[in-house]
Amino acid sequence: MHVTADAATAWLRDAATSARAASASLARLPGAVRDGALHAAAAALRDAAGAILAANAADLAAFNAGQGSAAFRDRLVLTPARVAAMAQGLEEIAALPDPLGRTLAEWTRPNGLLIRRVATPIGVIGMIYESRPNVGADAAGLCLKSGNAVILRGGSDSRHSAAAIHAAIAAGLGAAGVPQAAVQIAPSADRAYVAAMLGAAGLIDLLIPRGGKALVRRVQAEARVPVLAHAEGICHTYVHDAADPDMARRVLHNAKLRRPGICGATETLLIDAAVAPALLPVLIADLAAGGCTFRADASARAICPQLPAAREGDFDTEWLDTVLSVAVVDGVDAALDHIRRHGSEHTEAIITEDAAAAERFLSGLSSAVGMWNASTQFCDGGEFGFGAEIGIATGRVHARGPVGLEQLTLYRYLVLGHGQVRP
Amino acid sequence: MHVTADAATAWLRDAATSARAASASLARLPGAVRDGALHAAAAALRDAAGAILAANAADLAAFNAGQGSAAFRDRLVLTPARVAAMAQGLEEIAALPDPLGRTLAEWTRPNGLLIRRVATPIGVIGMIYESRPNVGADAAGLCLKSGNAVILRGGSDSRHSAAAIHAAIAAGLGAAGVPQAAVQIAPSADRAYVAAMLGAAGLIDLLIPRGGKALVRRVQAEARVPVLAHAEGICHTYVHDAADPDMARRVLHNAKLRRPGICGATETLLIDAAVAPALLPVLIADLAAGGCTFRADASARAICPQLPAAREGDFDTEWLDTVLSVAVVDGVDAALDHIRRHGSEHTEAIITEDAAAAERFLSGLSSAVGMWNASTQFCDGGEFGFGAEIGIATGRVHARGPVGLEQLTLYRYLVLGHGQVRP
Repeated sequence: MHVTADAATAWLRDAATSARAASASLARLPGAVRDGALHAAAAALRDAAGAILAANAADLAAFNAGQGSAAFRDRLVLTPARVAAMAQGLEEIAALPDPLGRTLAEWTRPNGLLIRRVATPIGVIGMIYESRPNVGADAAGLCLKSGNAVILRGGSDSRHSAAAIHAAIAAGLGAAGVPQAAVQIAPSADRAYVAAMLGAAGLIDLLIPRGGKALVRRVQAEARVPVLAHAEGICHTYVHDAADPDMARRVLHNAKLRRPGICGATETLLIDAAVAPALLPVLIADLAAGGCTFRADASARAICPQLPAAREGDFDTEWLDTVLSVAVVDGVDAALDHIRRHGSEHTEAIITEDAAAAERFLSGLSSAVGMWNASTQFCDGGEFGFGAEIGIATGRVHARGPVGLEQLTLYRYLVLGHGQVRP
Repeated sequence: MHVTADAATAWLRDAATSARAASASLARLPGAVRDGALHAAAAALRDAAGAILAANAADLAAFNAGQGSAAFRDRLVLTPARVAAMAQGLEEIAALPDPLGRTLAEWTRPNGLLIRRVATPIGVIGMIYESRPNVGADAAGLCLKSGNAVILRGGSDSRHSAAAIHAAIAAGLGAAGVPQAAVQIAPSADRAYVAAMLGAAGLIDLLIPRGGKALVRRVQAEARVPVLAHAEGICHTYVHDAADPDMARRVLHNAKLRRPGICGATETLLIDAAVAPALLPVLIADLAAGGCTFRADASARAICPQLPAAREGDFDTEWLDTVLSVAVVDGVDAALDHIRRHGSEHTEAIITEDAAAAERFLSGLSSAVGMWNASTQFCDGGEFGFGAEIGIATGRVHARGPVGLEQLTLYRYLVLGHGQVRP
């Protein structure tokens, strides 16, 4: 049944109001109580495994009637092991340090006022995601731990699964005595709820879209609420002329082929003209042996004529696959210029033994993450030591790079005096 | 001449594109060069004082034909002293520590990767302001110092003044060899430019509105770009039953009457029922002697019958004047409940000698600033030690409280390895 814009907006207003109250309660609960709620939610997910798998079967049955790809279907599928992993994920979040209440800075003014900046929850997070049903559980866990309420809106393909997962988490919160309004889900996958969330200025504090480029771009373009996201990761590995050739081979192979489908995978190889004649053929052979194909510019093809020519737009493409764009450049500034024209401000790496070149490259980047002699696939909350992440942000306010618990907080000030008045 | 939406959008696209390039240049300039540009802009403002005052005379002539208040007209007026103060403001900003390049955090992972979080500019700031022409100069100064480009859109009443100030600053940037596109101003005060800025997702990174509640609320509701602002400051001073009476008198008098028109001025007195019979009459007498008038609830009027009764909405009103709302409450939780229903999450203070009560009050607040035994008028970037501020934020992402240079930055990551690959 179609949901009208008015009905969706009215639902959201009520949901966000109760979510705000729930967040205020969460913020005042000791960390141990929030952790207890995460453990209760994990237990509830395990208890509800049968119901969740049955709901997932309904989603899969409806999906078979459609015509999505096998990869898309795989993202939908839940198994007993995947449900167990969701529950374990909540327990792992519970084990992380409490991001709330930390003193971020503290100083005393000449008049004796002590000013303290302390970490607080953001408030109400809106999470718009697509097919992977586990995203809802992960988001709920990270938000609960950081004292935020979350309003979930999953994709229509996974709607039964998402609702069953939400019901289990809500039951866990109830059992733990934590407000169930802290984790809510849109009543259906109707698009009217997405529109309501995009327009929810003052109701939702932050939107986090997780899914394909089209979804993220739409949210970024239309939201009247701040957005934390990245639309794509067109990541570059730049092999500088002072690169250690063995390191370049090892790091590039990993950056491209370890998992080609993640956003931190390298999509473009830039290589200095000075070393390309000797090194490019070796790099290409390594990657080709690993199943990689290529789109090369004219200079690269002059060295490796067997490479297919890059077409218009190839250097602006996030392949998410065993495909690598290849361009020969003439030094650090040319590499930076290529990245500025074609990159997505996600993650770029330089491979070099020359510290001055690395410094010049890294300081010239505006990407969220710049790396020196490391695989771009390290751009990940777990690899950064955050324990868990809700996504990667490439925007210009609030947070950049992996978004973990710390990035789901803001701060407020305490000013401690003994009767000071302002002159 | 009316500007079409398409023309305003096209102008903004070009302006934001050159602004982004200018910000990238600024970010790479040494702090000394940015400071030099600020000094050059200050000199140019002094050189252009005659032209700025002539432009201001044109604004005032146009204004006299209208019908604004005397206070509104005063905000428009520039004098030689006010122009000199603008120039000096830029020099004071130049003297502050460089907010860029700071290492905000640094850690080493078990695999040996060194991860460093460094402060970077945000990028392109949009500043929408009303009558005070100096706001444009202050904003330009803070943005330049923090490596951001800024697009200004002043009010129609001050359009000649704003354009003359902008022209002087641009001349200063040119003289210093810094891209003039770093500070731009809308070609006219047509409202189409405001609409274009509000819709500039991906072009402008952050909007900062400065002006009346109506302007700020419109920007908050309609912007497709993150907003840093506060619509109003309904600040509370809560006199707890364990307050030192003399301190309560001194601090409340300052919080209300030092400058009643600033956003950190106290608008509402909350006083505990236990001490109100003895203390409220004294507090009221002090304030009345200072010219204050009152809007009191029934309990306060039972103690001080001469006080006018508060009407519907009075407790939700930012007076910005010598008016104080007064309510008697029954303890910390009742005070917090009043603040939750009527406050604006700006600044609230408790006056008490009881540390446990102060702790309970401060931890129960969600306001940007909570104070203990201090005047709410201390909510100010200068008083916090930030040197200068571009406004106060009460939102839930990026920054809260006074917005100074540090709050005009974000960060990115440097990951320094020696050939690590991800397992």
